[in-house]
Amino acid sequence: MAKKLFDYQLDETVDGYFLLKDSEVRIAKNGKKFLAINFQDTSGEISAKFWDASDQDVDHFQAGRVVHLHGKRENYQGNPQIKIQQMRLTHAGEPQDVQQFVEHAPLNSDTMQEAINQYVFAITEPNWNRIVRRLLTKYHDDFFNYPAAKKNHHAFAGGLAYHTLSILKLAQAVSEQYPHVNRALLYAGAILHDMGKTIEMSGPVSTTYTLAGNLVGHIVLIDEQIVEACQQLKIDEQSESVLLLRHMILAHHGLLEYGSPVRPHIMEAEILHDLDELDASIQMMQTSIGHAEPGTYTERIFAMDGRNFYRPLHDATKGDQPEQGD
Amino acid sequence: MAKKLFDYQLDETVDGYFLLKDSEVRIAKNGKKFLAINFQDTSGEISAKFWDASDQDVDHFQAGRVVHLHGKRENYQGNPQIKIQQMRLTHAGEPQDVQQFVEHAPLNSDTMQEAINQYVFAITEPNWNRIVRRLLTKYHDDFFNYPAAKKNHHAFAGGLAYHTLSILKLAQAVSEQYPHVNRALLYAGAILHDMGKTIEMSGPVSTTYTLAGNLVGHIVLIDEQIVEACQQLKIDEQSESVLLLRHMILAHHGLLEYGSPVRPHIMEAEILHDLDELDASIQMMQTSIGHAEPGTYTERIFAMDGRNFYRPLHDATKGDQPEQGD
Amino acid sequence: MAKKLFDYQLDETVDGYFLLKDSEVRIAKNGKKFLAINFQDTSGEISAKFWDASDQDVDHFQAGRVVHLHGKRENYQGNPQIKIQQMRLTHAGEPQDVQQFVEHAPLNSDTMQEAINQYVFAITEPNWNRIVRRLLTKYHDDFFNYPAAKKNHHAFAGGLAYHTLSILKLAQAVSEQYPHVNRALLYAGAILHDMGKTIEMSGPVSTTYTLAGNLVGHIVLIDEQIVEACQQLKIDEQSESVLLLRHMILAHHGLLEYGSPVRPHIMEAEILHDLDELDASIQMMQTSIGHAEPGTYTERIFAMDGRNFYRPLHDATKGDQPEQGD
Amino acid sequence: MAKKLFDYQLDETVDGYFLLKDSEVRIAKNGKKFLAINFQDTSGEISAKFWDASDQDVDHFQAGRVVHLHGKRENYQGNPQIKIQQMRLTHAGEPQDVQQFVEHAPLNSDTMQEAINQYVFAITEPNWNRIVRRLLTKYHDDFFNYPAAKKNHHAFAGGLAYHTLSILKLAQAVSEQYPHVNRALLYAGAILHDMGKTIEMSGPVSTTYTLAGNLVGHIVLIDEQIVEACQQLKIDEQSESVLLLRHMILAHHGLLEYGSPVRPHIMEAEILHDLDELDASIQMMQTSIGHAEPGTYTERIFAMDGRNFYRPLHDATKGDQPEQGD
Amino acid sequence: MAKKLFDYQLDETVDGYFLLKDSEVRIAKNGKKFLAINFQDTSGEISAKFWDASDQDVDHFQAGRVVHLHGKRENYQGNPQIKIQQMRLTHAGEPQDVQQFVEHAPLNSDTMQEAINQYVFAITEPNWNRIVRRLLTKYHDDFFNYPAAKKNHHAFAGGLAYHTLSILKLAQAVSEQYPHVNRALLYAGAILHDMGKTIEMSGPVSTTYTLAGNLVGHIVLIDEQIVEACQQLKIDEQSESVLLLRHMILAHHGLLEYGSPVRPHIMEAEILHDLDELDASIQMMQTSIGHAEPGTYTERIFAMDGRNFYRPLHDATKGDQPEQGD
Amino acid sequence: MAKKLFDYQLDETVDGYFLLKDSEVRIAKNGKKFLAINFQDTSGEISAKFWDASDQDVDHFQAGRVVHLHGKRENYQGNPQIKIQQMRLTHAGEPQDVQQFVEHAPLNSDTMQEAINQYVFAITEPNWNRIVRRLLTKYHDDFFNYPAAKKNHHAFAGGLAYHTLSILKLAQAVSEQYPHVNRALLYAGAILHDMGKTIEMSGPVSTTYTLAGNLVGHIVLIDEQIVEACQQLKIDEQSESVLLLRHMILAHHGLLEYGSPVRPHIMEAEILHDLDELDASIQMMQTSIGHAEPGTYTERIFAMDGRNFYRPLHDATKGDQPEQGD
Repeated sequence: MAKKLFDYQLDETVDGYFLLKDSEVRIAKNGKKFLAINFQDTSGEISAKFWDASDQDVDHFQAGRVVHLHGKRENYQGNPQIKIQQMRLTHAGEPQDVQQFVEHAPLNSDTMQEAINQYVFAITEPNWNRIVRRLLTKYHDDFFNYPAAKKNHHAFAGGLAYHTLSILKLAQAVSEQYPHVNRALLYAGAILHDMGKTIEMSGPVSTTYTLAGNLVGHIVLIDEQIVEACQQLKIDEQSESVLLLRHMILAHHGLLEYGSPVRPHIMEAEILHDLDELDASIQMMQTSIGHAEPGTYTERIFAMDGRNFYRPLHDATKGDQPEQGD
Repeated sequence: MAKKLFDYQLDETVDGYFLLKDSEVRIAKNGKKFLAINFQDTSGEISAKFWDASDQDVDHFQAGRVVHLHGKRENYQGNPQIKIQQMRLTHAGEPQDVQQFVEHAPLNSDTMQEAINQYVFAITEPNWNRIVRRLLTKYHDDFFNYPAAKKNHHAFAGGLAYHTLSILKLAQAVSEQYPHVNRALLYAGAILHDMGKTIEMSGPVSTTYTLAGNLVGHIVLIDEQIVEACQQLKIDEQSESVLLLRHMILAHHGLLEYGSPVRPHIMEAEILHDLDELDASIQMMQTSIGHAEPGTYTERIFAMDGRNFYRPLHDATKGDQPEQGD
Repeated sequence: MAKKLFDYQLDETVDGYFLLKDSEVRIAKNGKKFLAINFQDTSGEISAKFWDASDQDVDHFQAGRVVHLHGKRENYQGNPQIKIQQMRLTHAGEPQDVQQFVEHAPLNSDTMQEAINQYVFAITEPNWNRIVRRLLTKYHDDFFNYPAAKKNHHAFAGGLAYHTLSILKLAQAVSEQYPHVNRALLYAGAILHDMGKTIEMSGPVSTTYTLAGNLVGHIVLIDEQIVEACQQLKIDEQSESVLLLRHMILAHHGLLEYGSPVRPHIMEAEILHDLDELDASIQMMQTSIGHAEPGTYTERIFAMDGRNFYRPLHDATKGDQPEQGD
Repeated sequence: MAKKLFDYQLDETVDGYFLLKDSEVRIAKNGKKFLAINFQDTSGEISAKFWDASDQDVDHFQAGRVVHLHGKRENYQGNPQIKIQQMRLTHAGEPQDVQQFVEHAPLNSDTMQEAINQYVFAITEPNWNRIVRRLLTKYHDDFFNYPAAKKNHHAFAGGLAYHTLSILKLAQAVSEQYPHVNRALLYAGAILHDMGKTIEMSGPVSTTYTLAGNLVGHIVLIDEQIVEACQQLKIDEQSESVLLLRHMILAHHGLLEYGSPVRPHIMEAEILHDLDELDASIQMMQTSIGHAEPGTYTERIFAMDGRNFYRPLHDATKGDQPEQGD
Repeated sequence: MAKKLFDYQLDETVDGYFLLKDSEVRIAKNGKKFLAINFQDTSGEISAKFWDASDQDVDHFQAGRVVHLHGKRENYQGNPQIKIQQMRLTHAGEPQDVQQFVEHAPLNSDTMQEAINQYVFAITEPNWNRIVRRLLTKYHDDFFNYPAAKKNHHAFAGGLAYHTLSILKLAQAVSEQYPHVNRALLYAGAILHDMGKTIEMSGPVSTTYTLAGNLVGHIVLIDEQIVEACQQLKIDEQSESVLLLRHMILAHHGLLEYGSPVRPHIMEAEILHDLDELDASIQMMQTSIGHAEPGTYTERIFAMDGRNFYRPLHDATKGDQPEQGD
Repeated sequence: MAKKLFDYQLDETVDGYFLLKDSEVRIAKNGKKFLAINFQDTSGEISAKFWDASDQDVDHFQAGRVVHLHGKRENYQGNPQIKIQQMRLTHAGEPQDVQQFVEHAPLNSDTMQEAINQYVFAITEPNWNRIVRRLLTKYHDDFFNYPAAKKNHHAFAGGLAYHTLSILKLAQAVSEQYPHVNRALLYAGAILHDMGKTIEMSGPVSTTYTLAGNLVGHIVLIDEQIVEACQQLKIDEQSESVLLLRHMILAHHGLLEYGSPVRPHIMEAEILHDLDELDASIQMMQTSIGHAEPGTYTERIFAMDGRNFYRPLHDATKGDQPEQGD
């Protein structure tokens, strides 16, 4: 089977098919054009420069195209990069399906859908249950295809649903350990908390922010949908149960500085915020550590205050656990 | 004409009718009950203690009642207070109408309504005009009766509309000076920016926060009403003009730390935020300075970083201007 | 069965045996002595004042004594308090055992010990296992008797072990969900992370900070014990495995501002910090909510940025869950 | 009439006369010299690189020279830039007057002077009036020629006076709306508040900070001039009126962090600070929005917390207002 | 010899003459007046309450009077206080001279003056020397009588000069250790740095802030005097040497947040700031530790971030050093 | 005698022997390799680029080698740099000893050792004396060879001991001026405070952080050594004297944010922190000012909040002092 991008060692010759995730025309110090490229396959993405780009090159090598690459895996200031020796568009019969090169959530869409449905069953309060079902239906396709963020954590296709499911599992563990936690409320809040990102962001590929995303933001965008759902389902939007659910979403960033218009003032909202951060942190650390060699440090992770993390030398210390980064 | 609360000098005998704005039962160090009272009339409010309160006293002297007071104006740690010598409920034929004792906006409701209507005419963009009219109609009575805040600035009946009108006048001056400012947008945003307070707060008297106020907050509460208005008026809620208007309201606290889920990203939203703060600051400073003697400092104003302000000694420096504090 | 402190309703007559948790002599405004008291039983603690205390009263009613109280449950500025009508030391034959009045962890010492041992078995790395066993043995009695903190969260006898066990359960759920997490390291760190509190604090009753606690602090105090354990167990204290374990403890406050000399730079240290905060938060919220009436807010919780939390009106929304506060 | 720099569209050929606002010799990655240039005319400034500069080029193309340019308008990372194809110094008969290429305030010096004089008349307090007149006379030429800042807001010739006049107009509107404001004090403070910049900065072109500017700063530099003026005019510098005026200037940055040695403690000082910020913000937003296409965002504005601003798509929403950016 | 205030032990009977440093009329919970008093002698000050004060008592026991006190040394929440049993004004023949009861600097005025003069001789730059001499002469009496602050550090008569001298000694040590330090500049800056406090504060007793102090502040007030001195001495106020000296004073608070309009940008200004803080800290710590028993903690020191300090148990560890607190 | 790096003027031809302090392979925009070099001799270090590096060049010109350089002293954005014209490794008979090119402390190792020993004699408390002696012996060689930091202050061979000695001298001056300071404790703390850097850093050349340095940090690393020393010397590690000494080291960064697990709570710890910062600041300022021309500003010093410092024009103002920067 073909080697993946991150299978190549330093100084090894790279030869294979990759997606041009980004390809931006820039002007070099010598006045000529070059392309700032990110190659992508399912193992991740690595940057490269295509020097002295002709007008035809600029036209051919656009983001979203699949290419055949001949080059070398190098290092630049501690980060991997590719030195391009030869590059061409793929011919008929060669790989051209973008979906094969995009990172996906570790679980497929159907599996995640089924798992999340189990949590919907456990939402025993009828208003919450009906609101969640309606919005899950309304945003179904995007919800299971979008990333959870443009970059940082869960920035892959299906990442939004995967992140949601991951939080639901943690929420279940917490609910079982602390019996006073209202699990129906916690599950309902978890499922809806980031659903507004399907309105905030343009889509799973070449993600940008929409005007509504910039001027209103995903928190208020989904809050508005809950209100609409109440009107359509004839649920009193001023009832305590609806206010509690809206509060779960509005408060889930935890701090005003992070864009929540109110801080958590019910226990389940505080817990949702904590689990959201916990899952995002673990996902970011796991991804970075998977790309670092044992005995070295990861790149600095911007969204974790720029900290880097040490990957221990002896995985043996972990006993019979699976290999890191597989 | 009867003296007002703030007409009495230090150590002067107080004799008149006043409203019990607050009256809270507490237990003194000697184990007996007393009432922590705020007397109010249209000149402001002053605190007092009613010692050794019997059960009948507690029953009689509840917040919202009008009483006849015989006492003395004193000072406690720099703040005025009343020493109660005798206090009784008013009899038939004596003042009993709470409205006569409550502070009101300097302008009456009709005047403010007419003035604000002039600004509505100037909202030349049809979507904004229709949304503003509908919400002004829906919240009409509360909008012209509510205070702008529980305490701090414009904490009097009609304060919400008065504060709104004050911002509109500043907005007009700014629009005339800077022609690139979209005045229709600035006026529409100004009128709606604090209207959610009619949902957030319980009412103009003995104001508390509603559950919706605590869990959702006035910014999101009125945003939701704009969305509902769009649906009822068949206005596309994803159109640029609606997103701009919503952004005006969502961003008007200026900073995320102050509860706006987004920071201002259009010029008119930044201006609305600045004028909102400017009007609130001036109103707070004017009120405090009006209660201070020339050549002294005001109390510290909590909402202005705890600063106190100096009232200059020689008002003569102001030339032919009206007397401060009238 | 005798009523507990928190079973009494407002204005109800209180009659029973209670522990004097605190009893401090102060001087009243009238120049006489009084005692500022906290009554305690297993349901919690409530404050009271004992006025006009004679020298004999001061001598009798010292902290740690059990008394018979006749009084009334009142309210002072939203917080419960007791009005003392009569109070005397207990006679022979009446309750005198302090342990019966102290709050304890919900689980007894043996149960917690057994449960924690199961986690020790899962520490498959031999150095960590041996260090953990040695320190668990060395601090055994205090570890299972101390509170987790002087006030705030888990401030009851056995609170330290209970908090530790609670984190271990969360750690297990996380380890199962994220297979790259080194569970042996996470468990070892969790067990030791707060063990230094047995050196930092004076004991489970009338807790104060020791000089070592004030000048060195519990984080460094237990780190020093790990180093000593290595020497005694002939484990190389500069080995990677020991450095990782020490880092778990040193970094567990997450931020330098919170007293960690280093921030988390391995994944398991970040997770331990997050779970530590999560468990402390839930415990504080549960306790406060248990003391609030449905439809009201809790007291402000100092250690959670002074936020108060809303206890929803309709517990029915929680379906078949156990009653809050039981 | 000749096209201005900002009249050229992307990829259009540029052909015309421009001022070299900045021209800095740097060394390229290939070891050769190049010039980092900013072209300027009255429409703004755009950067460019002049590659492979000979010693003669370096000598010719110095900042402050006017050149004829043949090139192309391009884009680099979202910002406009010029690709230089040919460049030469202008000959006799071609434009060489720097003043024609420099940005100027929208009003000429005489107009601004007359307008400001009207405000001086309204300073009815004699001490303030005399001090303001003396310093306006002393710094007359520089005051009407300097920019208000090296970069950021009003960074053009005459910007200092223009910014001052703009604040005066806002001050007038505020004085009329809030009658307790001492307008004489507000006007006097507004006129003097930034006058120290004529000592702090080297001049209107190629502006740098003087040693006095760096070690003392414009706030204290003009305060010292007020004190000197008092001595020369035989005004008691310890009188209340002088202390009030000095406080206006000393406090006008609003916060200690922004370089004011005292925070505003009189109402007029707080208002001056607010209007200063309001005018600077609007000027910066207007300039940036004028350079952005409808439906896009401006560059990030450093002095406004790095925010960018959206220029709405449909200017039609603005009704009969003038075109943005004209 | 008569016992001093701090010589009395807990519960000991107090009998002696003391100054009423503060005496404020307040109203007790029972409605009667009482005096909130601070007794003072050269050992420090202790608070007390004088209950049920008659009008005559209020008239007699004013701040600044010397009284004979009969009472008891008690403790209130960890702080010493006096229970007044009998108090009367002193008769003829008894102590009445306020100066005998006020805390003074450890050195007398003449000694400090002579010592500071030695440092003036070492100011070898003629401009600085002349400016320093003139201002020392102008403010001579106040400079050697004022405290260095209203409260916090060196809050005793002569404290300003004592603090200045203390910094000069440290400055000398630093100058000798680091030969590139310009000692003339450092000495000149040290002598003038707080001299503005003689204008900012009302005087050595019952110190309040003047209007100039509040609106201008001691930093700018002395800067203005340097400028005046230059004019009178015909020194060019724009010369580098004068700018350097002014910068020393303007920057000596170190941070803008602490009221310096500029941060230190010359080495000697940074050093002056550091030594100023060091001397103030040591003085505050020494005073507090002198009032604490060995083996206990001091009160929290507000100006040192509210920290308290431990006084070690065994002074023996200090070898042959003088007794702490003598 | 040969010219030093910093003896060459702008545009002067450089010809001499220098150490390659750093030499890092990078890839140029044109795809070819180049070396990013720092040349070093005892006068400091200056950066350079070696373009178009062949594989042999990469092999030859490694960090730690001495080379002969022919080039030119240039400027790049205000910082000095070298343009390399010719470079070769040194031959036999030419300089090759790295030690001749490395910056050293101004005092040699023996002198510093003797000076520090004098302070050890003055540590009259026996426990502290024995602990200090043992650790001085244990880390002797590294202590006198390590820098005090990787960059910033005292980043030269012997810098750690030099910085320690400098603090000791300041500590002596403080002890003499403030007799209540426990000088034995202050000296002991000063000697040990940074000794953990010998474990935290890899060595005096090409300094990196060790794993123990990253995961534990120098403060805790030396604290652990004090504990070990106590065990070996049979000193009770819970005695007050040991806790005081440990607190000196643990608290010496002053603020938790700077990595101290506890803030200073004894007077000597606060003083040590202040002197540590003072010495580091002066050393950084002196070094930077020594590299700046009179009348200009230094580079911005990162570790001093990015401030730059002015070197006055007229050193004459310093009278008979030694030349700056010699």
